[in-house]
Amino acid sequence: MYSELKEIVCKANIELHAHGLAPFTWGNVSEVDRNLGVFAIKPSGVPYSDLTPDKIVVVSLADGKVVDGDYNPSSDTPTHYVLYKEFSDLNAVVHTHSVNASSFAQAGRGIPAYGTTHADFSYTAVPCTRALTDTEVNSEYEYNTGVVIAEHFRKNMLDVKSTPAVLVRSHAPFVFGKNASDAVHNAAVLEIVAEMALKTELINKDVTEIDGYLSDKHYFRKHGANAYYGQK
Amino acid sequence: MYSELKEIVCKANIELHAHGLAPFTWGNVSEVDRNLGVFAIKPSGVPYSDLTPDKIVVVSLADGKVVDGDYNPSSDTPTHYVLYKEFSDLNAVVHTHSVNASSFAQAGRGIPAYGTTHADFSYTAVPCTRALTDTEVNSEYEYNTGVVIAEHFRKNMLDVKSTPAVLVRSHAPFVFGKNASDAVHNAAVLEIVAEMALKTELINKDVTEIDGYLSDKHYFRKHGANAYYGQK
Amino acid sequence: MYSELKEIVCKANIELHAHGLAPFTWGNVSEVDRNLGVFAIKPSGVPYSDLTPDKIVVVSLADGKVVDGDYNPSSDTPTHYVLYKEFSDLNAVVHTHSVNASSFAQAGRGIPAYGTTHADFSYTAVPCTRALTDTEVNSEYEYNTGVVIAEHFRKNMLDVKSTPAVLVRSHAPFVFGKNASDAVHNAAVLEIVAEMALKTELINKDVTEIDGYLSDKHYFRKHGANAYYGQK
Amino acid sequence: MYSELKEIVCKANIELHAHGLAPFTWGNVSEVDRNLGVFAIKPSGVPYSDLTPDKIVVVSLADGKVVDGDYNPSSDTPTHYVLYKEFSDLNAVVHTHSVNASSFAQAGRGIPAYGTTHADFSYTAVPCTRALTDTEVNSEYEYNTGVVIAEHFRKNMLDVKSTPAVLVRSHAPFVFGKNASDAVHNAAVLEIVAEMALKTELINKDVTEIDGYLSDKHYFRKHGANAYYGQK
Repeated sequence: MYSELKEIVCKANIELHAHGLAPFTWGNVSEVDRNLGVFAIKPSGVPYSDLTPDKIVVVSLADGKVVDGDYNPSSDTPTHYVLYKEFSDLNAVVHTHSVNASSFAQAGRGIPAYGTTHADFSYTAVPCTRALTDTEVNSEYEYNTGVVIAEHFRKNMLDVKSTPAVLVRSHAPFVFGKNASDAVHNAAVLEIVAEMALKTELINKDVTEIDGYLSDKHYFRKHGANAYYGQK
Repeated sequence: MYSELKEIVCKANIELHAHGLAPFTWGNVSEVDRNLGVFAIKPSGVPYSDLTPDKIVVVSLADGKVVDGDYNPSSDTPTHYVLYKEFSDLNAVVHTHSVNASSFAQAGRGIPAYGTTHADFSYTAVPCTRALTDTEVNSEYEYNTGVVIAEHFRKNMLDVKSTPAVLVRSHAPFVFGKNASDAVHNAAVLEIVAEMALKTELINKDVTEIDGYLSDKHYFRKHGANAYYGQK
Repeated sequence: MYSELKEIVCKANIELHAHGLAPFTWGNVSEVDRNLGVFAIKPSGVPYSDLTPDKIVVVSLADGKVVDGDYNPSSDTPTHYVLYKEFSDLNAVVHTHSVNASSFAQAGRGIPAYGTTHADFSYTAVPCTRALTDTEVNSEYEYNTGVVIAEHFRKNMLDVKSTPAVLVRSHAPFVFGKNASDAVHNAAVLEIVAEMALKTELINKDVTEIDGYLSDKHYFRKHGANAYYGQK
Repeated sequence: MYSELKEIVCKANIELHAHGLAPFTWGNVSEVDRNLGVFAIKPSGVPYSDLTPDKIVVVSLADGKVVDGDYNPSSDTPTHYVLYKEFSDLNAVVHTHSVNASSFAQAGRGIPAYGTTHADFSYTAVPCTRALTDTEVNSEYEYNTGVVIAEHFRKNMLDVKSTPAVLVRSHAPFVFGKNASDAVHNAAVLEIVAEMALKTELINKDVTEIDGYLSDKHYFRKHGANAYYGQK
């Protein structure tokens, strides 16, 4: 019943590791199947080299409980759960501790859109959430991580399609995509964009963000009804 | 008729990816055949691992239209087209989003010539164009990218032989060469030169450019009639 | 008698090199067997590619003398010896000159805890010891390196379980673990954490350390009786 | 007659490339045989992948002329020649444009000795020469590069054994060794030491050099009559 979803999610987790975005057991990928009312996610703490589709854990969208699989799901599962509940058009979630993006998160700053590499990927700057409070951390921490992300998106009228990545302050990125593989791709692009942003500021400390008309042009060249990048 | 050109261009695109200069589907290489009145270029959005000579697209120098190939050409094709029209001695063009060179483009700065590694490759600093205007972006954007590059070269009396790379502001580099493979080589050298320039400024914020006589010596040691580097 | 310990230590040294943490012959790993009253350690100056279990050297905890093996032990052996004597719950020690962590050591600074990647690994900032005195360096230098580390831990009420890494000023890191392989893992994490800390400060020079409640949460999610990361 | 020397030099050049220190055709290694009165060096502009011992060029110490080999020697051959003439105890020379060391050269700064990684390798800071004059560059440039290095060593009472690397201002490093392979090793260490020095300054802009007694300890632990690192 869940075998195709588990294969997709297993493959995407292995890709994440192959991109160098998730050393050791860090990082996890999930994808949702809204018809089946579940999402599939990496098991907690299992090395990527040992990952096989049968170890992928399936979680109910109704209550966040495991419905299939013998392993504990990723400790970040409640974050994924909240995100799928809050964003009805969200299909896949990736969490990494990739170095450059996490450094922005640790610095408490979003990633400004400095060029077309960023605009090809995200319509907006990559936002950084507020810090979680002591209470939020000490009660259902992972769940509240999702709540704080959702709060940031609502307050700033962002959506997960056009803003495919967010930094959780003092922590690391969560990344979105059309499917698990697309979310992994976005996580890899985010890391490049973060490295470029850091270096751009080192080269010119007074740099300003990309012109809105250029950013729009690049974003819509690749995304939406009028995209003309790639093959039909 | 175009098979040799397509093979050359296919091979150079694969080299570009192998150098790590073009992750995913980013970046493209073209080479012109002025006798045949065409240039060949990468298809848009096709992964490098899937690239074969028959997927390379051939474009007319007369009108910029596709004359051979089943795929959409790179979305940057009109930029290549303008460059071949504007510079009669231009043989090959590479576009990348390589991290260090793109960071200078995002910072709105050319790459100063700080040492002999730079001078071995380019007779001048690597220039950075002005920003495109809203109008230029919203009407024939890729074509106008080429126009702005050509304008910069004319205004500053640069030529594509001795200035083999240029940064488009807020975007990324375009690189030139004697042929597709040479342009890929230059794109790789540019990325090293950009990384060195960034680090040079971090090591000495008051650094000045290389002495002109040393720069000339290195450039002409490798280029032109009196070059004595390499084998005859 | 020591064959299992020698195999474990040989394997961990090779892992250290494979992680890129110990180029050439730099770096060494040891693990203690307190029942046997010995620790096993890398031979001095032997390339990792030539390392086999029979070349591993076994040293007595009673007097620091070699009890098994034909090679000279690592020149840092007296440091390991002191650490095992001083910390009765210490099981394994790694020494590297990994670039980012050593740069903090050279800068005379510990690594501040800026985010959850750090907190997942260490309960505290990574400390940096005082400089050794001329006398300490010129008499039993390696032994005194261990003494200075132990002094720092005692004075600051740190323990090697919850503070699994320390920087020796002007030198490089020493890293601890539950066993040799775990200590190698910690050495690899330390290097990532150090790179992130450097970049975090470049992105925001006024950054402050992670909130204590968030740090605690992450540390105890992975360590101790109430850990819930991973599989049971 | 020269076959052993050519094999040694060929192998060392290939090692240099394998270490990532010499992309494309950049960089060259030579080793001298003072009994035979010659040194062997890489041919100019030949890719490392095409390098075989029979392509190595042998040059006379008497007059700097080629005595064996069908290829043009490296364009930097006169620099090597001067160095072998000026330093009677010099056995091997490596030239690279490795990124971090060359960035210091471009910045016009030597590499300060900030830690034991540096002291394990060099007894002193890595010096940076003065700039060559217009006249020196325009007449026998490569020869004068060697002259300026030799001048710097004499004026500062340095010797090539204990100061195994030097940066030529606005250019790049020259590195020395007991033999070709040792010089390549030193070139690799120099690049690590340069990266660490850059990062050390980013972490602490007020950092000072390593204490002399600690530097001496590390240097003499590995070098000279009382060295005790490694196996006998």
